[in-house]
Amino acid sequence: MLRLLKLICLFLLPAMLTAQHPVTFFTKAEAAEVKKNLYRYPLLTQSYLELKKEVDGWIGKKIDVPFPKDAAGGYTHDKHKYNYTLIFNSGVLYNLTGEAKYATLVKDVLLQYADLNPTLKNHPQATSSSPGRIFWQALNDANWLVYAGMAYDLVRNNISAADRKKIEDGAFKPEVEFFTKEMPDWFNLIHNHAVWATAGVGIVGIATDNKDWTDMALYGTKKDGKSGFIALMDGLFSPDGYYTEGPYYVRYAVLPYYVFASAINNSRPALKIFEHRNRILHKALMAGLQQTNLNGGFFSLNDALKEKDYTSNELVTAINTSWDVYGKDSGLLVLAQKQNRVVLNRGGVAIAAAISKGKVPAHYPYKTVEYADGVKGENGGVSVLRNGKGNNLTTLIYKYTSHGLSHGHYDKLNFNLYDKGNEILRDYGAVRFIGVEQKYGGRYLPETKGYASQTIAHNTIVVDERSHFGGKESVSENFHSDKLFSSTGNPAVQVAAAKEDNAYKGVHLQRTAYLLDLPDGKKLLVDIFNAASTETHQYDLPFHYNGSLISTSVKYDAFTSSQEPLGKQNGYQYLWKEAAAKVNDTLVQLSFLNDRTYYSISSLVQGEASVFFTRSGANDPNFNLRHEPAMIIRKKGDNVSYVNVMEIHGKFDPVYEFSSNAYTAVKNIQVLQQDEQYSVAMILLNDKKLVIAQCNKDFTATGLHSAGGVSWTGAFTVIYDGKKLN
Amino acid sequence: MLRLLKLICLFLLPAMLTAQHPVTFFTKAEAAEVKKNLYRYPLLTQSYLELKKEVDGWIGKKIDVPFPKDAAGGYTHDKHKYNYTLIFNSGVLYNLTGEAKYATLVKDVLLQYADLNPTLKNHPQATSSSPGRIFWQALNDANWLVYAGMAYDLVRNNISAADRKKIEDGAFKPEVEFFTKEMPDWFNLIHNHAVWATAGVGIVGIATDNKDWTDMALYGTKKDGKSGFIALMDGLFSPDGYYTEGPYYVRYAVLPYYVFASAINNSRPALKIFEHRNRILHKALMAGLQQTNLNGGFFSLNDALKEKDYTSNELVTAINTSWDVYGKDSGLLVLAQKQNRVVLNRGGVAIAAAISKGKVPAHYPYKTVEYADGVKGENGGVSVLRNGKGNNLTTLIYKYTSHGLSHGHYDKLNFNLYDKGNEILRDYGAVRFIGVEQKYGGRYLPETKGYASQTIAHNTIVVDERSHFGGKESVSENFHSDKLFSSTGNPAVQVAAAKEDNAYKGVHLQRTAYLLDLPDGKKLLVDIFNAASTETHQYDLPFHYNGSLISTSVKYDAFTSSQEPLGKQNGYQYLWKEAAAKVNDTLVQLSFLNDRTYYSISSLVQGEASVFFTRSGANDPNFNLRHEPAMIIRKKGDNVSYVNVMEIHGKFDPVYEFSSNAYTAVKNIQVLQQDEQYSVAMILLNDKKLVIAQCNKDFTATGLHSAGGVSWTGAFTVIYDGKKLN
Repeated sequence: MLRLLKLICLFLLPAMLTAQHPVTFFTKAEAAEVKKNLYRYPLLTQSYLELKKEVDGWIGKKIDVPFPKDAAGGYTHDKHKYNYTLIFNSGVLYNLTGEAKYATLVKDVLLQYADLNPTLKNHPQATSSSPGRIFWQALNDANWLVYAGMAYDLVRNNISAADRKKIEDGAFKPEVEFFTKEMPDWFNLIHNHAVWATAGVGIVGIATDNKDWTDMALYGTKKDGKSGFIALMDGLFSPDGYYTEGPYYVRYAVLPYYVFASAINNSRPALKIFEHRNRILHKALMAGLQQTNLNGGFFSLNDALKEKDYTSNELVTAINTSWDVYGKDSGLLVLAQKQNRVVLNRGGVAIAAAISKGKVPAHYPYKTVEYADGVKGENGGVSVLRNGKGNNLTTLIYKYTSHGLSHGHYDKLNFNLYDKGNEILRDYGAVRFIGVEQKYGGRYLPETKGYASQTIAHNTIVVDERSHFGGKESVSENFHSDKLFSSTGNPAVQVAAAKEDNAYKGVHLQRTAYLLDLPDGKKLLVDIFNAASTETHQYDLPFHYNGSLISTSVKYDAFTSSQEPLGKQNGYQYLWKEAAAKVNDTLVQLSFLNDRTYYSISSLVQGEASVFFTRSGANDPNFNLRHEPAMIIRKKGDNVSYVNVMEIHGKFDPVYEFSSNAYTAVKNIQVLQQDEQYSVAMILLNDKKLVIAQCNKDFTATGLHSAGGVSWTGAFTVIYDGKKLN
Repeated sequence: MLRLLKLICLFLLPAMLTAQHPVTFFTKAEAAEVKKNLYRYPLLTQSYLELKKEVDGWIGKKIDVPFPKDAAGGYTHDKHKYNYTLIFNSGVLYNLTGEAKYATLVKDVLLQYADLNPTLKNHPQATSSSPGRIFWQALNDANWLVYAGMAYDLVRNNISAADRKKIEDGAFKPEVEFFTKEMPDWFNLIHNHAVWATAGVGIVGIATDNKDWTDMALYGTKKDGKSGFIALMDGLFSPDGYYTEGPYYVRYAVLPYYVFASAINNSRPALKIFEHRNRILHKALMAGLQQTNLNGGFFSLNDALKEKDYTSNELVTAINTSWDVYGKDSGLLVLAQKQNRVVLNRGGVAIAAAISKGKVPAHYPYKTVEYADGVKGENGGVSVLRNGKGNNLTTLIYKYTSHGLSHGHYDKLNFNLYDKGNEILRDYGAVRFIGVEQKYGGRYLPETKGYASQTIAHNTIVVDERSHFGGKESVSENFHSDKLFSSTGNPAVQVAAAKEDNAYKGVHLQRTAYLLDLPDGKKLLVDIFNAASTETHQYDLPFHYNGSLISTSVKYDAFTSSQEPLGKQNGYQYLWKEAAAKVNDTLVQLSFLNDRTYYSISSLVQGEASVFFTRSGANDPNFNLRHEPAMIIRKKGDNVSYVNVMEIHGKFDPVYEFSSNAYTAVKNIQVLQQDEQYSVAMILLNDKKLVIAQCNKDFTATGLHSAGGVSWTGAFTVIYDGKKLN
């Protein structure tokens, strides 16, 4: 009997062992390595057991593959989403345990899809320009293809030839042809959707040994390389890895980039896909991670949701794979530990092993970084200026990128400030309840375009109450801001300057950010924002501050018993006007409290200006908006300058009932010179003078300049209490 | 030489060792025990070293004792506050190290106060009815006396007789006489201020061996026992430890109660103060702790601030002392670990030792508790109904107490719901930025009386847009609600009922709360709230929900482009009316999302009603209020009933983009019978019937009843899917 069993084993095993699958998620050799280590490292063991427990709960049960009906958050949507995760996990378990029941689960589910998919037309809830079949939008069908394709690859050795044909023809072919034949324009687009679509078609191509599909995935439906996965690696990133749709979207795209690249690397190693474009996928991941906040959230640029952070599944996969492909990186351990799980591949094993040795740094190594935007780095970019250590980190995001495709905002020269893990000067992000069916099926809500993407929802200048580029993507996508210079080598004085000439016809906007860490411990941001035009305009500069208003220097009229919106269009209709003031030759100051820190904004007003205190939430009949305050300073003129100081100061302890250093130190701001060539400002901080002198046109390092009583060399100088800091 | 030193030591030591001080914070013997263990237990060591580091930073430095000028949050206020903490800590260190420098620091500072205090008149910022001298209010002067008194006691053995006299006459006597001679009415009041005042005077009396002062502290200025510390132990608690001002205030009073009791216990052991009134101080602490939320915050009853939690200094002291006096209690270890420090007394040693053994439970043992209010337990009370384990804890607070002295709110029969550590049905608490000088010197802001204490700011019925008792404390303090019955033995069905007949003349209010944990896993709160009158009134029932509005069954008109307050007075003027609806014979439903859980309110409307969606923040010219939403159901009639269901359901995962069980299960609510005797309601939960039948007058356990087609025994019955649950 034992002999018979051995014989059967001998007969069966070679067929399994010599097959060229799996080859997408991992190879046979990699699976063996994972298996060997499963019980060695706690994080790996835990990840394995959690996954096994989840899948084991479904073994032997009928798994529903419902006819598509609901939008995101509804039953059929969530079920199909759950199904593709389940079969992928079951396929992984089949390779790690050798137990046929896991392969059977995958096969049974895929056979159901083989019956379902050929019957599908466009989804009844399809509202986007790229409708889906299993889901309301094609993007989700692409997610399904990525995971279902890997699941199939993981178990195909255990499936009979007849069933394979059923699955390939029934489950996969209709979806692949739907993408490549019925929606080639969408499939060939340079956009995050296409990253998923090409990864899905490509993984299925590899899993089914269908070279045609894989080639279309790599090089576009015409196989000319103008679109497809390689073109997406070339077209969506700048040379230093900045993803043009912004960090929130690289979070999402990084998964198909990494899993399809892994599958290509296993099946077509000659392509050296991970080396492509000077390791662009590594740069992409690292740039994405530097664009997160202490709490793990991705910067709120463009249509971002603040709930998403680096513990999401996409980042677990990318980080684990990166460790294996690009080598170990102790910073990643900080994130892996917060993710509290690993992927069951070689990188996951290595990370779990490293964590088990206990040498995890306390914080991710956030640093000052600057990224160019555009394929050649020619489309402006973003400066992320940072100072402070550990939880005391301060981060200024200064954005002067291109539009960022369909999820871009009209936010040229925008500031966004984070401190101690909190967003202090906010970017609204997107208006969306993702995964909540009742809120328009989890889709982007109309207030995203109506309010959140408009210029007034940002911390940058709005001219004549119109958004940049008239709020038209078709116009905005043709332009980008330009970086003028930056200096980030000295942590005490970090500077970045950029200009924008196209957002408004005939208006030149130029903004210079100084993130300062003064010798006496004061932390502040100085902002010189100049607007120049030959005609008279109205300029609005909002500060979307996050906190409780503690005090203001402004004597305002409060609209306490009747409230109206600030304006009628371009996002202004979403802001309640809570208070307004006329001011004249003064310092506009606002102190607010966020968590346990005080923040103060001081802005010089020369001549007349208006100040508005607003709150989002007007014209919101469906209660979609958060109610967030802002202070807006309105000036009129042809050439207008804002000199703003934002201090981070003091400490508030409500438990001990102590406040320290709770008042602004800014006693005065004077403009010593302001013209086309120079801006020179003096800021009196208690009894010490902070003088900032900058060039507005000549940014060479060697230029000698004299203006406003200050002489200096180079693009700028910062002098505090008589001492030059830069 | 060595002999000489020995001789000097022999000469000096006895004088120190035989003195009867210290005797307040700890005795010589207790200090020796602490000293012996200082390096044995990590938490004790850490607490000691942190305190030592802080004090060591001041050794040899001039310590400023400024002339009083500022309100809370300002320099002189915070400096005096810092000073009393510093000298107390330095006094403790003197006893633990024997180093004279610590005693010298205390002496030098107290000598400065000895110069300052005799010169003081009322504080320039004094605005309250009990002005202070060192601080803006006398309460803070009492804090100073408590700590300065202990500091003096801790080091007096090291102070010359001449300096002792200076300190006793200069620093202490003016303050003691200020309290006992100039403000005897305040000193003799039954109120938390007096707990601090008597503790301060008493501790100073013990420290200075002044029996007269200690006797006045214990028995009032007339020494007749009608006021003073003992009367405060008798007069502010119910027999089961409920503190009539509410949990937020016991947090504050518990420290003087415990430290003065310790000092009495050391100096007058015959009083057996810790045994007084069946260990009322133990009951007080335990009741205070049960009235906290998972996050450590005290329930928002009355003028509470949500930032305060059980990590505050007062609770560290009380918990450490309680462990020593009343015996070990593993639940306290959970809190001590979160406090992350111990007091350097015997209890602190014992707690640090217990924590070092590592057996700290995961959660504080929160349970269903009910407390009576009033000295004899005759003034109504509060039912805290709980179900769920660990972080899945649900807590309903049903308040039917007396007014709660000067910090009480007009909130008879109020509900407050917490779930998973979040406040779901909110009580605004107080409007105050404690410790923030810019916000009216950290005092209670006018909106506390104007809005937060008014009935409309609570989750209970408002009749004719007037607050309970006309919003008059002088009226309200004469009354209390009455508990009718409760049943808390069965975790699946917990019930509490109470009535209120005095809040509105001629209106009977009766509310019964059912916290249910159904066999199929549904968690819900059913609320039958009946109002009865012979005349027609307008009844408003607000739900101050905390979360994002996800959906509602109500077709409303939204005031999207112009907004006005809901009313003109009694708190209504602080609510913006965001939307309004007229409804008729319908189910009013509202689903909202808080964190990762869905909540739905369903309320039956028979006949006509109005529904308002509001948000706090109107008539708030100084930006003092938070902007929080509410839904208010307005009915008109003589006898009006509300049948409300609040479900806790589903899960939202924004990272995985999944929602489950996101919809209300309530399909219908029917009133099967409603009259003076009975309320019987049927709630259809998907396809299952939940029937609740209750008596409105006969609450005996044995009464046989039949109404609305249901027969039952006792005060109520709950039937689900045909099965009786209670």
